[in-house]
Amino acid sequence: MELNVYLSGEIHTDWREQIIKGCQSYDLNIVFCSANTDHDTSDSAGDILGAEQQSFWRDHKSAKVNAIRTKTLIERCDIAIIRFGDKYKQWNAAFDAGYCAALSKPYITLHREDIVHPLKEVDAAAHAWATTPMQVVETLKYLASK
Amino acid sequence: MELNVYLSGEIHTDWREQIIKGCQSYDLNIVFCSANTDHDTSDSAGDILGAEQQSFWRDHKSAKVNAIRTKTLIERCDIAIIRFGDKYKQWNAAFDAGYCAALSKPYITLHREDIVHPLKEVDAAAHAWATTPMQVVETLKYLASK
Amino acid sequence: MELNVYLSGEIHTDWREQIIKGCQSYDLNIVFCSANTDHDTSDSAGDILGAEQQSFWRDHKSAKVNAIRTKTLIERCDIAIIRFGDKYKQWNAAFDAGYCAALSKPYITLHREDIVHPLKEVDAAAHAWATTPMQVVETLKYLASK
Amino acid sequence: MELNVYLSGEIHTDWREQIIKGCQSYDLNIVFCSANTDHDTSDSAGDILGAEQQSFWRDHKSAKVNAIRTKTLIERCDIAIIRFGDKYKQWNAAFDAGYCAALSKPYITLHREDIVHPLKEVDAAAHAWATTPMQVVETLKYLASK
Amino acid sequence: MELNVYLSGEIHTDWREQIIKGCQSYDLNIVFCSANTDHDTSDSAGDILGAEQQSFWRDHKSAKVNAIRTKTLIERCDIAIIRFGDKYKQWNAAFDAGYCAALSKPYITLHREDIVHPLKEVDAAAHAWATTPMQVVETLKYLASK
Amino acid sequence: MELNVYLSGEIHTDWREQIIKGCQSYDLNIVFCSANTDHDTSDSAGDILGAEQQSFWRDHKSAKVNAIRTKTLIERCDIAIIRFGDKYKQWNAAFDAGYCAALSKPYITLHREDIVHPLKEVDAAAHAWATTPMQVVETLKYLASK
Amino acid sequence: MELNVYLSGEIHTDWREQIIKGCQSYDLNIVFCSANTDHDTSDSAGDILGAEQQSFWRDHKSAKVNAIRTKTLIERCDIAIIRFGDKYKQWNAAFDAGYCAALSKPYITLHREDIVHPLKEVDAAAHAWATTPMQVVETLKYLASK
Amino acid sequence: MELNVYLSGEIHTDWREQIIKGCQSYDLNIVFCSANTDHDTSDSAGDILGAEQQSFWRDHKSAKVNAIRTKTLIERCDIAIIRFGDKYKQWNAAFDAGYCAALSKPYITLHREDIVHPLKEVDAAAHAWATTPMQVVETLKYLASK
Repeated sequence: MELNVYLSGEIHTDWREQIIKGCQSYDLNIVFCSANTDHDTSDSAGDILGAEQQSFWRDHKSAKVNAIRTKTLIERCDIAIIRFGDKYKQWNAAFDAGYCAALSKPYITLHREDIVHPLKEVDAAAHAWATTPMQVVETLKYLASK
Repeated sequence: MELNVYLSGEIHTDWREQIIKGCQSYDLNIVFCSANTDHDTSDSAGDILGAEQQSFWRDHKSAKVNAIRTKTLIERCDIAIIRFGDKYKQWNAAFDAGYCAALSKPYITLHREDIVHPLKEVDAAAHAWATTPMQVVETLKYLASK
Repeated sequence: MELNVYLSGEIHTDWREQIIKGCQSYDLNIVFCSANTDHDTSDSAGDILGAEQQSFWRDHKSAKVNAIRTKTLIERCDIAIIRFGDKYKQWNAAFDAGYCAALSKPYITLHREDIVHPLKEVDAAAHAWATTPMQVVETLKYLASK
Repeated sequence: MELNVYLSGEIHTDWREQIIKGCQSYDLNIVFCSANTDHDTSDSAGDILGAEQQSFWRDHKSAKVNAIRTKTLIERCDIAIIRFGDKYKQWNAAFDAGYCAALSKPYITLHREDIVHPLKEVDAAAHAWATTPMQVVETLKYLASK
Repeated sequence: MELNVYLSGEIHTDWREQIIKGCQSYDLNIVFCSANTDHDTSDSAGDILGAEQQSFWRDHKSAKVNAIRTKTLIERCDIAIIRFGDKYKQWNAAFDAGYCAALSKPYITLHREDIVHPLKEVDAAAHAWATTPMQVVETLKYLASK
Repeated sequence: MELNVYLSGEIHTDWREQIIKGCQSYDLNIVFCSANTDHDTSDSAGDILGAEQQSFWRDHKSAKVNAIRTKTLIERCDIAIIRFGDKYKQWNAAFDAGYCAALSKPYITLHREDIVHPLKEVDAAAHAWATTPMQVVETLKYLASK
Repeated sequence: MELNVYLSGEIHTDWREQIIKGCQSYDLNIVFCSANTDHDTSDSAGDILGAEQQSFWRDHKSAKVNAIRTKTLIERCDIAIIRFGDKYKQWNAAFDAGYCAALSKPYITLHREDIVHPLKEVDAAAHAWATTPMQVVETLKYLASK
Repeated sequence: MELNVYLSGEIHTDWREQIIKGCQSYDLNIVFCSANTDHDTSDSAGDILGAEQQSFWRDHKSAKVNAIRTKTLIERCDIAIIRFGDKYKQWNAAFDAGYCAALSKPYITLHREDIVHPLKEVDAAAHAWATTPMQVVETLKYLASK
């Protein structure tokens, strides 16, 4: 079963690479995609269309340019993996989860046990919760097999 | 213009009451609704259906019961107000924002300026950003006026 | 919060009445609806349009007339309660659950613990599982409260 | 005409193989897919994400992982074949039928005549009812020709 | 159960009145609606917006004005009754049936047995076929009863 | 037939009042609604949420606040009347027409004959074209009559 | 521009072949599809699943099997050509037109001028009306050209 | 990331070619499409189906034929670029923008700063505003990069 998997959330650890390599080592029929995960080019995406003086509008412009990409990828994907790291708010990850839920697009959350309580609404709409990238790999292997 | 407004997010300050009272003082034709904002009964909503030993499943059960209410209210509303406070993660607020965005349901965010950067994706899909409950009241007054 | 609740499934015990009376005793703002629960008139619904000799077509005609009602009620409802009794196949209850799931309409299953395993797919898409009508009443009371 | 066919339901006889081989013998342009039909790995799908002590939650976790696959396949397919065997409840098959009906996805039921009455609601929303795998093969041949 | 019923098709006999009076005599909770059934004002609906010299464009203009009404009513209704009389082509009735089918809106056809064969595709997507207005009344009575 | 009619476009002449009064004189069952048609408060709608220095962002903020209203009203209405005056670009009117077309919401254009050619795409997706407010009144009278 | 074109309606003349050959002679990037146009195998499609004694149910069964094909093809196509011949009722063609209209799928009608009046509702929802297969070919050539 | 980009609006300058060549020079994985941009063949598209005497109907017929193409392309595309030039009304461009907005299809507007005010509603629903074709190229390069 061919799958298109969207990797959403935290950009400070190598969880994306671990999942992609893990799936490659099993030779699974999966295409992965992501938002731009480079912090600087992501924050400055809107500068292409002219510099902004106020930080709100600079963020706004960049976020809307990035949204063209994320919106398109989420709508195309079969499954999203939504990662919450130990630091930072990662409201965009929760936003993506809500977006998936409203579209009836299944997603798997990936986070440590100590944030289970504040993430309960996000986990409640998920199809699965994983604590390690390898669990995600094994789940995708299970889903994509045959 | 009659409006149905859903108030999502932070439950530790009285921002909901300020908005509701402000709109009442203008005699606006607005019906407000919310998730259960009582922390304890919200966390224990699933206990009605039997106690759970593990905190993950207790949270899961309660969150899914609460989701029946929030999902129904979001789908019924015309506008959502999404509030991010100074403390706590409030991933559920970001989740609600993503849910609204995917349904093309307009929402207004309500938060201080110092969290503009981490909320840029959530604000980018919003129709407006307010910093005080009174700004929300004035915006609703503007929208609901004949 | 006003709720429209569809009661689906088993017709041989008084679980519908228990739920309706329980909610009335709490004076909840809930409208209940159901398929025709009278076995004989339900099976002969199609006879209005002419008798059939073959049982397959008699069943087919009646089921399609009844589907006009159930389809309309499911699409109108906010929540469905899906009841599986101890006897009979009750495939129509599972069919209604699948119909709700595809429409993103939340439902609560109501069944004994001993059929948890064969109902796992139906429960997995549910927002809650109750074992007694009173648990359903308490859950609806929680949801419908202001 | 290329068709994508989802095979849902009973896993204890070889009806899937009969349909697939029958269609291959006619060289039809059909891609078949299914849920995981291996009983043990299906029941333990959730164990990948950590063991559960309570059977309800073990079933729940596994069923939600499996639902990622079935939901995706049903939404991708052109036609579903829904099989009800002589034993077991097979509520998941009826659930899939309801899911297809709500999505306006055509399905063909496959079952013996003696369960026509309890399956009348499921058959009423079907586009056809077959009693043998070979009838399904001939119907698919008819549909996929030219 | 309150129902909104759209009456589509033939305008040369009093079948609409028979159904409406029959339902009134049972005091059913049903609202009926129809396209404009007056032949002359229907054909000249577009003349309000200026006369046309060519009959194709006169028909086109009138039909589009009338479509505002029929489209709105079909989308609002719960059930459509689609009537095919003995004379005339009544392609608009078949068009309405197709429109309902694509929207998953249930409809009942009303026609004599001698045109069963040419109407087989229209009947196949219907939830019921009646041969007399009184059968429609009895079916609506059955559906609308508490 | 009760109708909800959205009046979109030009704000410099009294076409809205002519239509509303004309319909009132016929005592039609029609509710009318509009965007804010007061030029100054419309342009400054975003100022409620804080002043902007750059005209682009001021316009942007105001337009998004106004869009909450127009989007909600268009989605609620049964018919839109889209008015193009003799002056100004009125791209918002054409935008509303495209929005209606994509939602399959019928609309009637109201403009003089001399701009038929540049409006051909907008008129092609309309259900009718009127040149005077009184033609709109007569068309609405025709549509809303029992 | 690659196009998928569905050819619906009359099966007694060679209009399908004329259109297909005409487009082939221009080497257009168009894939054509149709319902089964062989009258006998179409009428007996349901016999695969067992013979029926009553003509209504035989027609019903066959029409539902054929609907699996037509429904799938209409939902896949970019444009439908709906042909009304000089004889026969062709209610299925009008049904397909209504189905397309409700899905916002553009279609071109193909019929002689003498039936413009009874087809006015079907033509009103069409994007074009042609009187000869060659006009359809030229229109498709225009649309499919780079 | 492969993208399908629809280029809408002004046909009197070479902005389309600039964007296409710019993207080709970066070797981006983008497919571009457009309405027919040849003024004369576009205006006469309906003549294929017979000449019209009145300019309104000639325009109407041509616009509806062209709409088959534009509607299909907009629904297929991932992103639209909506161009407003210095001359002409270009209501069709604003119509396309509204159509995209209603479908939640992201679009980028391309126009000079001096028309920011009349385009504020169109820009408010856009994901970005560019003033030069090269800014569009750079934005597409950013979006389409791995």
